[in-house]
Amino acid sequence: MENQFGLKKIWVKDDGRNPSASLKDRASSVAVVKALEKKTKIVTAASTGNAASSWAVFTALTDLRTIIFVPKNTPEAKLIQLLLFGADVIQVNGNYDDAFELCCRAAEKWGWYNRSTAINPFLGEGKKTAALEICEQLMWQVPDYVFVPVGDGCIIQGMWNGFKQFYQLKLIDKLPKMVGVQAEGSAPLVNAWNAGTKTADPIEPVTVADSISVGIPRDQVKALRAVRESCGFFIPVSDREILSAISTLAKSVGVFAEPAGAAGMAGLQKCIQEGLCNSGDEAVVMVTGNGIKDIKGVKKSIKTKPIEVENVLEDVEEKLM
Amino acid sequence: MENQFGLKKIWVKDDGRNPSASLKDRASSVAVVKALEKKTKIVTAASTGNAASSWAVFTALTDLRTIIFVPKNTPEAKLIQLLLFGADVIQVNGNYDDAFELCCRAAEKWGWYNRSTAINPFLGEGKKTAALEICEQLMWQVPDYVFVPVGDGCIIQGMWNGFKQFYQLKLIDKLPKMVGVQAEGSAPLVNAWNAGTKTADPIEPVTVADSISVGIPRDQVKALRAVRESCGFFIPVSDREILSAISTLAKSVGVFAEPAGAAGMAGLQKCIQEGLCNSGDEAVVMVTGNGIKDIKGVKKSIKTKPIEVENVLEDVEEKLM
Repeated sequence: MENQFGLKKIWVKDDGRNPSASLKDRASSVAVVKALEKKTKIVTAASTGNAASSWAVFTALTDLRTIIFVPKNTPEAKLIQLLLFGADVIQVNGNYDDAFELCCRAAEKWGWYNRSTAINPFLGEGKKTAALEICEQLMWQVPDYVFVPVGDGCIIQGMWNGFKQFYQLKLIDKLPKMVGVQAEGSAPLVNAWNAGTKTADPIEPVTVADSISVGIPRDQVKALRAVRESCGFFIPVSDREILSAISTLAKSVGVFAEPAGAAGMAGLQKCIQEGLCNSGDEAVVMVTGNGIKDIKGVKKSIKTKPIEVENVLEDVEEKLM
Repeated sequence: MENQFGLKKIWVKDDGRNPSASLKDRASSVAVVKALEKKTKIVTAASTGNAASSWAVFTALTDLRTIIFVPKNTPEAKLIQLLLFGADVIQVNGNYDDAFELCCRAAEKWGWYNRSTAINPFLGEGKKTAALEICEQLMWQVPDYVFVPVGDGCIIQGMWNGFKQFYQLKLIDKLPKMVGVQAEGSAPLVNAWNAGTKTADPIEPVTVADSISVGIPRDQVKALRAVRESCGFFIPVSDREILSAISTLAKSVGVFAEPAGAAGMAGLQKCIQEGLCNSGDEAVVMVTGNGIKDIKGVKKSIKTKPIEVENVLEDVEEKLM
């Protein structure tokens, strides 16, 4: 990214171009292998959408039956993707936390293989690969900061483990500071960070960034520990800042992010404004999901409209110029 | 792809994972360099959507002003993408052919650089790279058939040129038969092929596959010649067959195609049914655009619905099992 932001260097890691258009594919690719190893017949997951569609894509290539629990407010594009890939979709009359609980109870009762975050230990192993790739792609020169949108906290803790392992293997010679970015309306980990506690109090999440709209972060302990170990921090961003970051990403690097996917960029911009990063720093910004998946959300970031014209040149001239 | 279709081998080339989620990025990446070489200030294009959003993504990285002409029925997701990347969007009260004419007249009158298909000679050079990649990815072993969704005809003629050039360079030792697949409701090239003419009579296009909904194919002469030279053919598929191919692609190879993007697969399935291909043949199927871009279109391929449940296990048991 051009240095229009006042940092030495910014890289954007676009995970919206994975097979199901989000970072969650890294986790699903590991989990599906584990499910097959267990000779499971039915697999399940609870998800705000991205993990679910990712799971449905990867399990579609197997004979597994896939049952997905989603909250009531899941964007339609995400539902369509699940149904298309042949999953049974259970839309729970409640939020993500309700869907999560119900999924876990069902998995336990009926013995289904559960891909839900924090329940399944292999997800972090998959998500770790984002960190490994960053090291490789930056020629083993690690940035000072890595900005990660945080809902449950699985991605940030998985990535931190990746950096640590490469450090232990002496493939990299320093560690980045991990910055967890949450939406103001869904910021239990920011609260816990500021309070200095090891766990987070539940909140009622409200944010445009549906993929990180989480009231009870399932990987809260690991996420808080990862950020602490890395000497990083948590930071909240407003929905307005998230929407503005969608536009920044589009216009500066041509990356189309969903609201949650753009939260990392919003966090970086805020850190620069508040002097938390300085001009000698290098940062990687994670984009965790593609904006095409949540047009309704992205639409809120747009202030212009199509210009409607009749099929004559004079009308173009009059309305455009 | 597993050999469930009765051919020796089928490969799916998924161009839905390009930066703007369609094959058109191959053309835009060449065209934007040419626009900059010309020291142009304003660029334009007419498009049913994919070429336009691709153009907007690539020009967003420059200082060029981008003016896009789209037909009235463009899916909202495609409009949002254009606006997000900062383009001026002119929505013409008419179909693609009207938008195309108006764009060309405006470009001529005001001296804008025009990325529209068949007007811009560099697009085919970009699209050609799809063929070059196929050769490379298949270790220089060319398939018997390449199935390509066809609207204007630019992709199929560009790809044919790519194969021919690699053949001339002796990088490959045979040429594939190019199969142009059109929607029944938008099949002027199929008609011309069957009539044995070198040009196509205009039709009024009606199909769910908006990206190949074209009444006057702009690259008709080149497309017909390419298919003839390759000893291939044109074939029409119904909207029902296209929708069914979306589902086939999702469930068999985990690829999410928009309706036009799945037309190639529908064509292959039809050829197999009608005995136009046989069990010794190998085929590549082009998927030209991502289904997330046209959820409304993809939705029509789905026969299942989410199961709505209250937040209790008994309700899951009752409704699911």
